[in-house]
Amino acid sequence: MTLDTISNCQLQCPEWCFHALKKGDSDQEEIVPSKKSAILVDGVVLNGPTTDAKAGEKFVEEACRLIMEEVVLKATDVNEKVCEWRPPEQLKQLVDLELRDKGEPHHRLLELCQDVIHYSVKTNHPRFFNQLYAGLDYYALVARFMTEALNPSIYTYEVSPVFLLVEEAILKKMIEFVGWKEGDGIFNPGGSVSNMYAIHLARYKYFPEIKEKGLSGLPRLIFFTSAECHYSMKKAASFLGIGTENVCFVETDGRGRMIPAELEKQIWQARKQLLDYIKANVFIAREGMALVPCCVPAQPSPDTCFLKRLSFTLQDDVEVIMGAAPFLVCATSGTTVLGAFDPLDEIADICERHDLWLHVDASWGGSALMSRKHRTLLHGIHRKYFWFAYKKSKPERFILIAASCAYAQTCYELKSKVQCSPKVAPAIKERMMKKGSLMLGYQPHRGKVNFFRQVVISPQVSREDMDFLLDEIDLLGKDM
Amino acid sequence: MTLDTISNCQLQCPEWCFHALKKGDSDQEEIVPSKKSAILVDGVVLNGPTTDAKAGEKFVEEACRLIMEEVVLKATDVNEKVCEWRPPEQLKQLVDLELRDKGEPHHRLLELCQDVIHYSVKTNHPRFFNQLYAGLDYYALVARFMTEALNPSIYTYEVSPVFLLVEEAILKKMIEFVGWKEGDGIFNPGGSVSNMYAIHLARYKYFPEIKEKGLSGLPRLIFFTSAECHYSMKKAASFLGIGTENVCFVETDGRGRMIPAELEKQIWQARKQLLDYIKANVFIAREGMALVPCCVPAQPSPDTCFLKRLSFTLQDDVEVIMGAAPFLVCATSGTTVLGAFDPLDEIADICERHDLWLHVDASWGGSALMSRKHRTLLHGIHRKYFWFAYKKSKPERFILIAASCAYAQTCYELKSKVQCSPKVAPAIKERMMKKGSLMLGYQPHRGKVNFFRQVVISPQVSREDMDFLLDEIDLLGKDM
Repeated sequence: MTLDTISNCQLQCPEWCFHALKKGDSDQEEIVPSKKSAILVDGVVLNGPTTDAKAGEKFVEEACRLIMEEVVLKATDVNEKVCEWRPPEQLKQLVDLELRDKGEPHHRLLELCQDVIHYSVKTNHPRFFNQLYAGLDYYALVARFMTEALNPSIYTYEVSPVFLLVEEAILKKMIEFVGWKEGDGIFNPGGSVSNMYAIHLARYKYFPEIKEKGLSGLPRLIFFTSAECHYSMKKAASFLGIGTENVCFVETDGRGRMIPAELEKQIWQARKQLLDYIKANVFIAREGMALVPCCVPAQPSPDTCFLKRLSFTLQDDVEVIMGAAPFLVCATSGTTVLGAFDPLDEIADICERHDLWLHVDASWGGSALMSRKHRTLLHGIHRKYFWFAYKKSKPERFILIAASCAYAQTCYELKSKVQCSPKVAPAIKERMMKKGSLMLGYQPHRGKVNFFRQVVISPQVSREDMDFLLDEIDLLGKDM
Repeated sequence: MTLDTISNCQLQCPEWCFHALKKGDSDQEEIVPSKKSAILVDGVVLNGPTTDAKAGEKFVEEACRLIMEEVVLKATDVNEKVCEWRPPEQLKQLVDLELRDKGEPHHRLLELCQDVIHYSVKTNHPRFFNQLYAGLDYYALVARFMTEALNPSIYTYEVSPVFLLVEEAILKKMIEFVGWKEGDGIFNPGGSVSNMYAIHLARYKYFPEIKEKGLSGLPRLIFFTSAECHYSMKKAASFLGIGTENVCFVETDGRGRMIPAELEKQIWQARKQLLDYIKANVFIAREGMALVPCCVPAQPSPDTCFLKRLSFTLQDDVEVIMGAAPFLVCATSGTTVLGAFDPLDEIADICERHDLWLHVDASWGGSALMSRKHRTLLHGIHRKYFWFAYKKSKPERFILIAASCAYAQTCYELKSKVQCSPKVAPAIKERMMKKGSLMLGYQPHRGKVNFFRQVVISPQVSREDMDFLLDEIDLLGKDM
């Protein structure tokens, strides 16, 4: 097949395809091209493939070598910079970002790959402490490469037989870690989505009709979570139509853990408000809505006016109670800022007493279940409702990271001792970025001014890197 | 560092870290280990790194070679099988899925990689027509490998300088394709999430208070979409608390395109119902709710009773109109089953007349914008609200796939001519899977029985593969 044969064949689609495929239709024979002839449609050869396989294969091979050399082999090299910092306008000049219609030759694409790697932050660097995705697990990386190359989607056994069985095997192991005899689960793209799913599930459990009817015209639904919870709780409340004002934040102790007595106090307050509404007879007619309470007990009390009555038998004149209906408590195992673990056992007791769904956001601290020493931090997690949200988007090899807990503890102890002005951390961070020697985040917390928040999760990190971190901060801030 | 030095050092965390890092504290000197000594916590060496870099690098190198040989190089080889079908119980015996506490040696892990690849469906095979993710784009694969190795998260310029600029450049190009002078966008993990975001945005535009207050106690919100829309529309309505019954499906023509006249009829019906509610004075008191209409026009008519009044000035005695408030039309550019493109220009006219948000689900057919010939299918897309949802999770190189449109046309023409029993397609599919020669899906559609649904998107596909598909179906079903 040459370009000549292509340009000699100018039949337009869809005619060519239709006739070519009808094959047996003798009336059309004079315009039926032979099976092998090439067709040009919109400048694209339809006899395809539309891609040059040999060139493509060569490119993948060369690019893989580059990735191996520039990312994987350098991942443990502390002599490399964590980042090659450039301000946006300068970086736009250094990396060719323009998308041209004609495409680029291979050597230019390879140079571009090189540039992308060069100016990207090295999250695999032992001294990248900035976020929770620090570090390189070689075995997980291979699993991710393999997943990208095979490009499966775990819809059904038919299209993804192996990965479906892998999913099943990992969930079985996770369920063992949690301490259940049986259970089920799904893998989510992250903690935010996991939290959203959990709230959605809890809502469905207590108010299944919301799926079809929606929330409109219903009493407010409220849920409880720690004041130190992840920001995705409010995002989920907005997204799910619950409303951010209907997230009730429970006060925490000095270490950032939810105070169970405060939780129970808030639940009683909500139940009392619901009762007051009933007593005041604030009822609302709602047409065609199945999910409503339909009568008031003769002697309403906080014990009788609660959630369960929302599933009472329907009557013709249905009524909606104004007030707020609690349905869920979201505990956190590993809070974002302080890494605190809520006391799950005590919270589970409260949820049982009030018939509330218990969800545990273990996106951060769930891996502690794999540590013999630290799994007690999640004691009581087996009591949550058949649901375990764990951040894992693709089948990856598990790695034991109990060490992180010990390191994290260090930072907490240190942080509580250090006092400085709110401007010190940002100024040190700026110098750090320009030097490229280290990366870690900072933030204020309640009454406390900006402090550094070090994430220690990378398998590349050594105790020397921990020492370096303190020395480097000291060095960078010496003149302040 | 040897195992002996490690086991000689049995200090428990967090004490070791705290003291080791306090360095200057002379009271504690006798238990302060030197900077370089190793610590064993929970069986893990804290002097780290906790991973064997040399072994890991070797494994990545060998596994990459395997992926290159077994996936990338075989992607264009039609002599390979599309799938090596095994029933679940048999596959569990063939692939070692057990997660052992001790981990596996490298050669076993490599064998496992080999098994995973061997028994996985080859979605890159030229004769995989089963789903929309068919085919291998070599350049996109490199981008995905690079993204996995660098492992960025595009939070801020600080942690992801290059990818943030790449995102900006691709969005700029997409906005050009749509035909806007300016605009913005985000990359989503898929079409379902894009649709959900769009509905969420539209709701926020008309009823911003829902973010804080939620939907409870409000009138029903409804939106319109084609009867042939993606199933994620109903899923989004459930998730967002709108309710699946509040998705109004608009009838389509014989080719699966939304009928604009039917859309407008349904919108008028909804407005009439809202008016009837107002006339019947069905008002509901709602405390503390800002988002409510507070008065009824002296002469309510469909023109005055509509959406905009929901933002009327608040008074003390606020009232809620029962009835349904339309806020959004979701058009589809490329429906799931028939690949139909809704007439965007006419739908945009209707949305303008009724002040409704227009969202276009172009997850399937959006790439037609890159074809000179087929971009007319999306004529009118520039009129949608500042919002373009396009399925793209990671920076990838664009590839022109105009050819798909012509192929798809063929299938439609053919399908409308072929008649068979509902059991024929599943029976042929079963034989196809066992033989592993080809993969394509089937499904019924409204009055029509099961028919094959061929997805032609892979750059590996040739016209010979198209011919093969028809011959092979013929061969497999010869005796039926």
